[in-house]
Amino acid sequence: MSKAAALNVSIERIQRDIEHLATLGQTPSGGVSRTSFSSADKQMRQWLHGQCQEHGLTMRTDGIGNIFIRAEGMNVPKAAPVCAGSHLDSVPEGGRYDGIVGSVAALEVLRVLGQAAPALQRPVEVVIFADEEGNYHHLLGSTALVDNFTWEELQQLRGREGDLLVDALSAMDWDPRHATRTALSSHDVHAFVELHIEQGPVLEESHTDIGIVTSIVGLAGGQLDFVGSQDHAGTTPMRLRRDPMQAAGSFLGQLARIASGTSSTAVLTCGLMEIEPGGTNVVPRLARLHLDFRDPDPDVLSQLEQRIIDCASNAANQYGVEASFRRMSVTAPVPLDPHIRALLREVALGRNLSVTDIPSGAGHDAQNMARLTPTAMIFIPSAGGKSHSPQEHSSWQDIEHGANVLLDGVVRLAQA
Amino acid sequence: MSKAAALNVSIERIQRDIEHLATLGQTPSGGVSRTSFSSADKQMRQWLHGQCQEHGLTMRTDGIGNIFIRAEGMNVPKAAPVCAGSHLDSVPEGGRYDGIVGSVAALEVLRVLGQAAPALQRPVEVVIFADEEGNYHHLLGSTALVDNFTWEELQQLRGREGDLLVDALSAMDWDPRHATRTALSSHDVHAFVELHIEQGPVLEESHTDIGIVTSIVGLAGGQLDFVGSQDHAGTTPMRLRRDPMQAAGSFLGQLARIASGTSSTAVLTCGLMEIEPGGTNVVPRLARLHLDFRDPDPDVLSQLEQRIIDCASNAANQYGVEASFRRMSVTAPVPLDPHIRALLREVALGRNLSVTDIPSGAGHDAQNMARLTPTAMIFIPSAGGKSHSPQEHSSWQDIEHGANVLLDGVVRLAQA
Repeated sequence: MSKAAALNVSIERIQRDIEHLATLGQTPSGGVSRTSFSSADKQMRQWLHGQCQEHGLTMRTDGIGNIFIRAEGMNVPKAAPVCAGSHLDSVPEGGRYDGIVGSVAALEVLRVLGQAAPALQRPVEVVIFADEEGNYHHLLGSTALVDNFTWEELQQLRGREGDLLVDALSAMDWDPRHATRTALSSHDVHAFVELHIEQGPVLEESHTDIGIVTSIVGLAGGQLDFVGSQDHAGTTPMRLRRDPMQAAGSFLGQLARIASGTSSTAVLTCGLMEIEPGGTNVVPRLARLHLDFRDPDPDVLSQLEQRIIDCASNAANQYGVEASFRRMSVTAPVPLDPHIRALLREVALGRNLSVTDIPSGAGHDAQNMARLTPTAMIFIPSAGGKSHSPQEHSSWQDIEHGANVLLDGVVRLAQA
Repeated sequence: MSKAAALNVSIERIQRDIEHLATLGQTPSGGVSRTSFSSADKQMRQWLHGQCQEHGLTMRTDGIGNIFIRAEGMNVPKAAPVCAGSHLDSVPEGGRYDGIVGSVAALEVLRVLGQAAPALQRPVEVVIFADEEGNYHHLLGSTALVDNFTWEELQQLRGREGDLLVDALSAMDWDPRHATRTALSSHDVHAFVELHIEQGPVLEESHTDIGIVTSIVGLAGGQLDFVGSQDHAGTTPMRLRRDPMQAAGSFLGQLARIASGTSSTAVLTCGLMEIEPGGTNVVPRLARLHLDFRDPDPDVLSQLEQRIIDCASNAANQYGVEASFRRMSVTAPVPLDPHIRALLREVALGRNLSVTDIPSGAGHDAQNMARLTPTAMIFIPSAGGKSHSPQEHSSWQDIEHGANVLLDGVVRLAQA
C-alpha cells in the first residue's frame, strides 16, 4: 500500500491529452462529434498510436475496432491482465469528457507504471471500446468482446445515417470478416475498472469527490396509450368529452410521485409523446406517452412498471378513457463487483477523498465487461450533471482525483 | 300564422337532394370531399342550376362564388329579401350534412313558396356561401359579402395545396377581378336565417329537436410553454429534475376544471403539443401546449384566459419550471338576433317540437351575416356529435323538423 500510494498521475499530461482530443471532431459550438470510424475517429487512432510509440507501449486493434494497449517491454508475468479503459467516441455534438476522461486516465496509468515499474503480479492493459455511443449498435465494442457477432448480424448493422457497419469497417482498411472473431473468454481478463464522469448531478450536489458505482441500472421502456373520443374542440362540452390528453396529463403530473413512491433510486421519464390526429381544434383520439424507467434493482423495476400501469388505469378511469401499456424493452440491472468496490473505496479514502456509493443511471461498457470478469466503475462529478452536450464539464482536480483512484485500484488488483 | 303553419317542406325532395349531393365528391370511405372550386364543386353548381331551371328559379353567382337564388317569376314586392342558406362545400373527407342540410332546406323553402305562393311583403332569397370551410380563407364567401377583398389581398390567398385562389377562380371561367366587388350593404338584406347541424352532442344527449343558437362562440388560441432543464433520463434523480412534462401534465389534467370553473359553456382543448428535444431518453427542455378555448361571452373568454395563465403559473411553480402564455388569435363572440330567436322558438313550439337555447361552438357564415343584418341560426341534432367526418349523420326526421322551422321562420320574417 505504501508503495502504491507513492505513485501519482500527472494531471498536466492528462489535461494536454484531453485538450488535444477535444480538437479531433471539434464542432463550431465547442462540442465534439467523433463517431466511431469517422475521420475524427481515424485521427484519434493515429494520435493514440503516436502516444504509444512515444511511451514504449504496444497498441493492438481487434476486428471491430476495440483498442488494447500494453507496456510489453516491461518485465511483466504471463497472466490475465487487469484492464482499465473507456471509450473515445462521442455522440454528435457531444462533450470533451464522456469516455475521454476514463480512456486518457487509463493511458496515464500505463505511463506512470512504465516510469515507476512497480512489482506487479499481472500485466495492466488499457481497453478503448469502439462505438460505445452506439451509432451502429448499443455498446458495440464491448458487446463484441462478450459474444462474437455473426456475419449475418454484422451485415444488418447500420449507423444513424443509414450507412452499413461493414462498409465503415472496410473504409478503415480493416477486413470486416475479422469483426466476427472478437470475443474474449473469462480467462483473458482478470478484472476491469472504468473511470467515467457521472453524467448526473448527484456527486456535485453532495460535494463528493468519488462515486463508487454499485450497479448499472436496469432500463425499461414502453408505450402508454390513452385512447378516448375524437371530437370537435368547439362543439363538444367539457362534460361530454372523453379526452385522452387530460388523462395523459394527470398521469404525467404524477411522474415524480410514481418513481419516488417506488424507490429513491427509480427514475421515470416521458420525453416523447404522440397525439392523434393532432390538430389545434380537435379533441384527440389518442395520447401516446413514450416512457423510460430505470432502477438498479430488478424487483424495483418490476414494481415500478406495475405502479405505472396502476396509475395510468386510475387516470384513465377518472377521465372516462382507456389506458394500455406495452413494454418495448427491458435491460436487466448489472451489479458491480463488491470486492473491487471495497478496494476502490479504501484507496479513495486513503487519498483523503470523500466517497459515496452511487448507481449508474446510464449504460456503460462496464455492464458488458461484468459478464466476463469482476468489474467496477469510478465516477467523478459532472458540472450541473450535463452530458452529451458541449456544456459537459469536469474539473481538472476532480479528474486528477479519479485518475489517482484508478491508478491505485489497478495497482492493487495487479499486485494480487 | 294559420296560413304559414299549413305549409310543409317535402322531406322526400330534401332526402333526394342530399343523397344526390353526397355523390358529388364522394370518397371511398363514404365521406365527401368537395372543396370550393374543385371539379366536385363545379358539378354541384351545374346540378343547382338544373334544379333552378326545373323549379322556375333564378340563380346568380357573385365574383367570389356565392350563389343567390330567387323565385323572380313570383309576384314579389321590391324590398330587401329575407335570406336563408348555408354552404355546399366540405372539408376533405367530410360528411353529407354539414352545410348541405341548411342549403337544401333553404332551396326547399323556395320550392314550397313557389308552389303555395303565400302573400309576402318581401322576397325570399337562398344564399349558398363559397368556401365556408376555409380552404382559401376562413368563411371566404360571407367574409366577401361584408367587406370587399382588395385585389392585393385576393392575390395572396392560397388553398391548403398551395394553389392560388385567383387561379381557382379563373379555372371556373370567372374573372377574378370581379371578386373585389362582392360586398353587400345592410340595405340589401332584411334578415338571415341559417339551418345547420349542431356538430356537437348536446341536442342528441338532451333529446331536443331544435336548438336556437344564442351566439357564435368567441374563439381564442395560444401557445403555453413550460420550460425546464434538459437532462439525462437515466442519471438525473427525480428530485433534481426541472421537468416541463410534469408541469404540462399537471395543467392538462385540469383542463375540464379550468373551463367548467369559468363557465358552463366554456371549452378548453389541447389537441397539439410540441416537445423539445423530444427523445425517449431525454428529460425535455420544453413542453409547448397549443390551446384552443371558446365561450359565447367575451368577458368569460377573458376570464378563461386569465385562469389558464394562473393555473399554468401554479403548475410551473409546483415543478420548478417556467410557464409563459402567448395569445395567437382571438375572434370575438357574435350574439344572434333576439327578435328572430324568439320568433323561431315560437314557430318550433307551434309545431310541437322541443326547443332549447344553445351556443354555437363552431364558426359559421352567420357570424359574418350578423354584421350586415339581423341573423339567427337553427340547429338540429348530430348523431354522436360527430362532424367533419364520414360518420356525420342527422336523421331525416330531425332534418324535416329543422327545415319546417326554417320555412315557418322565413315566412314570418317575409310577412313583416
